[in-house]
Amino acid sequence: MPDGGFSVEQVRQLDDWQEKRMSRVNLAVIAALLVAIGPKAIGDNAGVDYPLGYRTWQHVKSMIIQPGHPLEDPFGGIHHVYANSKAMSGLNNGQYEDGAVFVFDLLGYADSEKVIVETDRKRIDVMQYDRKQFSETGGWGYDTFVGDSTTERLDQDVVVGCYACHTGAEASSYVFSQYRP
Amino acid sequence: MPDGGFSVEQVRQLDDWQEKRMSRVNLAVIAALLVAIGPKAIGDNAGVDYPLGYRTWQHVKSMIIQPGHPLEDPFGGIHHVYANSKAMSGLNNGQYEDGAVFVFDLLGYADSEKVIVETDRKRIDVMQYDRKQFSETGGWGYDTFVGDSTTERLDQDVVVGCYACHTGAEASSYVFSQYRP
Repeated sequence: MPDGGFSVEQVRQLDDWQEKRMSRVNLAVIAALLVAIGPKAIGDNAGVDYPLGYRTWQHVKSMIIQPGHPLEDPFGGIHHVYANSKAMSGLNNGQYEDGAVFVFDLLGYADSEKVIVETDRKRIDVMQYDRKQFSETGGWGYDTFVGDSTTERLDQDVVVGCYACHTGAEASSYVFSQYRP
Repeated sequence: MPDGGFSVEQVRQLDDWQEKRMSRVNLAVIAALLVAIGPKAIGDNAGVDYPLGYRTWQHVKSMIIQPGHPLEDPFGGIHHVYANSKAMSGLNNGQYEDGAVFVFDLLGYADSEKVIVETDRKRIDVMQYDRKQFSETGGWGYDTFVGDSTTERLDQDVVVGCYACHTGAEASSYVFSQYRP
């Protein structure tokens, strides 16, 4: 669990509490609390490293998410998934070891004159495996780096924004991608 | 120059000759000549190796060519370009050394419900650099492997089908791709 963060169970309890009480509590009090504990206290992404050199890693597969798709915001674009060697081992044998990293590399695209070409990078999403450090989120830490930045992280709740969706792939160790030979 | 083949100059002369004479010569004679010299004698692809392990090489860039594009036949689909380390060096410094190899990996795609996913491999096209062996075609040998086969080569005239088009990129050593960071 990240320093100062809540456990997944606590977040779920918070969600329940919010559903039941939201109509009755003073939103200003919640806002004040959130400011007090900091914007990243829930679903903190502390500990996920920028995946230096990931463009030299194994290209796993690619996909385009078009306007109108339910995941258009925030995943619209052409994305490529890259895996470091430990992540590739995990893809092959279903077992991940600490240090496995996947990168979801999201680029814009231009669709013109019957050809689709890649444009600028929108973001990269990183999954980094460490069973102790990220034990609260299935062993995977999640984070997003904005555009081409190696330091600017998206201010988000990664439990809600990443882990919650990846639980849908729990049977494959929270990894959606399959290697395209 | 491949054994038994024509030089590029000879092919150009042949083209000129064909333009001037085609209406007057007996097509059956040409057909008989082509059978006599073998289907791969012009633009032979001898010497280009299957690029074993290319899926682990550097992913350079990707593109989709859609139905209706002038290059739809034969390049319609989603393609990824991969480079081995020597080809990457060449992309970076503009100088290619023997052994540099690019692979144009062409897959079909399915476009449905606002998402485009990769389907089966259609072919891979290979550019392999050897300044002596392929001196007649700018130092690059060209070949195509059909589907997922590592041995089935497309029966084609690579001078017409590959080199002729790549002369448009002569200023960048016959390489169209630029590395997408």
